[in-house]
Amino acid sequence: MLESNVRTDIAALGEFGLIQHLIDHFPTKQKTTVLGPGDDAAVLQRDSKTYGLLSTELWLEGVHFDLAFHPLKHLGFKLVVAGVSDILAMNGKPEQIWVNLGLSNRFSLEAVEELYAGIQIACEQYGLDLAGGDTTSSRSGLSLSIQAYGWVDKKKITKRSGAKPGDLLCVSGDLGGAYMGLQILEREKRVFAEHPDMQPDLEPYDYIVGRQLKPDARLDVIKHWEDLGVVPTSAMDVSDGVASELRHMAKLSGVGFDVYEEKLPIDPQTLDTAVSFDLNPSVVALNGGEDYEMVFTVAQSDYEKIHKHVDFSVIGHATELKDQIRLVTRAGSAFEVKAQGWPQTH
Amino acid sequence: MLESNVRTDIAALGEFGLIQHLIDHFPTKQKTTVLGPGDDAAVLQRDSKTYGLLSTELWLEGVHFDLAFHPLKHLGFKLVVAGVSDILAMNGKPEQIWVNLGLSNRFSLEAVEELYAGIQIACEQYGLDLAGGDTTSSRSGLSLSIQAYGWVDKKKITKRSGAKPGDLLCVSGDLGGAYMGLQILEREKRVFAEHPDMQPDLEPYDYIVGRQLKPDARLDVIKHWEDLGVVPTSAMDVSDGVASELRHMAKLSGVGFDVYEEKLPIDPQTLDTAVSFDLNPSVVALNGGEDYEMVFTVAQSDYEKIHKHVDFSVIGHATELKDQIRLVTRAGSAFEVKAQGWPQTH
Repeated sequence: MLESNVRTDIAALGEFGLIQHLIDHFPTKQKTTVLGPGDDAAVLQRDSKTYGLLSTELWLEGVHFDLAFHPLKHLGFKLVVAGVSDILAMNGKPEQIWVNLGLSNRFSLEAVEELYAGIQIACEQYGLDLAGGDTTSSRSGLSLSIQAYGWVDKKKITKRSGAKPGDLLCVSGDLGGAYMGLQILEREKRVFAEHPDMQPDLEPYDYIVGRQLKPDARLDVIKHWEDLGVVPTSAMDVSDGVASELRHMAKLSGVGFDVYEEKLPIDPQTLDTAVSFDLNPSVVALNGGEDYEMVFTVAQSDYEKIHKHVDFSVIGHATELKDQIRLVTRAGSAFEVKAQGWPQTH
Repeated sequence: MLESNVRTDIAALGEFGLIQHLIDHFPTKQKTTVLGPGDDAAVLQRDSKTYGLLSTELWLEGVHFDLAFHPLKHLGFKLVVAGVSDILAMNGKPEQIWVNLGLSNRFSLEAVEELYAGIQIACEQYGLDLAGGDTTSSRSGLSLSIQAYGWVDKKKITKRSGAKPGDLLCVSGDLGGAYMGLQILEREKRVFAEHPDMQPDLEPYDYIVGRQLKPDARLDVIKHWEDLGVVPTSAMDVSDGVASELRHMAKLSGVGFDVYEEKLPIDPQTLDTAVSFDLNPSVVALNGGEDYEMVFTVAQSDYEKIHKHVDFSVIGHATELKDQIRLVTRAGSAFEVKAQGWPQTH
C-alpha cells in the first residue's frame, strides 16, 4: 500500500512545506481552538482571562540527538527545555509536561533512569509537573516526544503574526553557540573513532558545548518582559535558527526584517570557534539552531525599556518589504538571507 | 554512556512497572495539575465548572502497526481513535488533536497524504480540530504520536479510582474482535509470504478485520450516559484488554472484580474465529486489546437505566477482595485472572 502511480519525494517540499500542504485540508471547527497549527504552540480557550497553550515535539535518535555524545541525563533536560521554550515564546507560563518514550532492548533500566533524572532536574528548575506520557518498546533506537502545557493572559499573548513595519527586532542572550558546540562534539567523535586512546579536551569549548548539551529555557525572559512592562508584538524561540524563525514571523506578520550584522550577539568562544572552522560567525549566528533564545519584536516606543537590559540585543527592525530578510553588513551593504542556502560568497 | 556497573533489563519491570518506577520521583507542584500520571488522561484546571483533559500515545512501526496490512488511511484514522478514546474514558468531550510524525525516506508525499486523509476523516467524524504537531525525518520506519485535548464537567468526571464494592461492572459493544482480526491479518500475511499468487479472502472476517483496522471511538457512549442520566463511578477505554484495564481500576479503586463468563459480549464472528484458532473465546474477550470500547462501573441504583440499553452489557461487579480479578464460569467456579498469563487449563 505504499505503492502508487505517482511518487513525490518529501524532500521536494521540505518540513514546513509538507506541514502546510497537509494542514490545508483541516478547517477549524471548534470555537475552543483559538489558534491551530503554525505558531510555537496551539492556543485554546481556557477561562475568561487566559488561554491554554499546548506544544509538542518529536525527537528521534540519529536525527535529533547522537547518544555518542549526548549523555542521557542532559538529553532528558534538553527535551524539556525544547518543550517549554515553545510555551515561553507565546509569553506563556509552562506548568505541565508529558513525555513519550520508545525504547529498544539495548536500553537498560539504569539508562532510562538517567534520562528521567534529567527530566526531573528540569521539572524542579522550571517548576513543572510531569503529568503523564506513554512508554513503549521500539524495534530500534530511542524515540522521544515531549508535550508542554501552559497558559497566558489573553492580553499578553505573543504570536508570530503581530510584527509591524518599524517594530524593533530583538533577541535574548547570544546566538550560534549551540551550533558551534555541535561542531566540536562531532569533530571529537570522529577523532575518537580514529584514535580511541585519545581523550577529548572539551574545556576550551565549555560554553558552546554546554549550549548544545544543556541549554536553558528562558523563563527569565518572560519575567523580564513583565518587569519592564513590555508586551512584544511578536515572538518565537530560536530552535531552527534565527533566519528560519524570521521567515516564519515575516510570513505571518506580512513584514520583512533588516538585521544589522554588527548587532548580532555572539559569544567570543562561538566567534573564535567559528573562525577556526572557517565559518562566517554571522552566518553561524543567523542559521545555527537550538539556542532556545527568544527572538521578538517590540514597538519603537519600548526602545528605552529594552535596549538598556543587559540580556537583550536590538538587532534590527521590521520593514514593509514582505518576506524579505536582509542582513545589513558592517560596510552598509544589504544582502538577502535566503532560506537555508544563504550566499556562500558573503 | 549507556554503560553502567548495574544493568537491569526493562522487561523485568514491564511497561506499567517501569512507568510507576519512573514517576515515583516526580511530586506534583502546580495547583493546576488536578491529576497527573496514572489515568487515561491528565486532568488540568480549566475554568470554574470544567477540567481540561490531555492524553498522549506513541505508536512505532513494527510494534503498534504492520504496514503490510495496515493501510495508511486506516492507520491515521485509528491513531485518532486511540487518542480521543482516552478523553472519552474520562467522560470528556475531545475537541483538539496534535499529530507528530517521524518519516523515513521510503515514504512518499502520496503515502503521507493517505495517512492524513485518514486523520482528516476521523476529525470530521468526531468533530475534532487538528491543532498542530511536529513532522521530522527518521532513520527508519514510521513513528507517530497523538495528543488529544478535551474537557469535562467537574461533576461528571470518571476516573479509574472511583469504583466501590457492589458497583456494577459494564462494557459497551463487544470484546475480542480487534484481537481476532489481528490474528486473521497476520495469518494472511504469512500465507501471502509463502504463496504470493494467492489473494486473501477476508470477507468471512469483515467484522473482526474492521475492528482491528478501523475501530470506532465511542463518542456515542458518552452521549448515552448523559441521556440515561448516569455518571459512571469509574471508567477506562479497552486498549490493552479488559483484564489489564480491570487490574488498573482495581488497584486505583481499592476493589476487586468478579466477571461472569456468560455475560461477556462476544460477536459470533469473534467466537467462531477464536474456536477455529483453538483459542478460548472468553480469554480472547478478556485479554484482547484495541477494541476501544468503554469498561465502566455504575452504582447498583443505576441498574435499571443501564441494563436495558442495547449497547451496554453488565458483566460483573466490584468486590471487596482488593486487586482480585476473578472470572466466574458458566459452571459457577471462580478463577483468578492473572496478569497476562491467564491459566491455559481453563
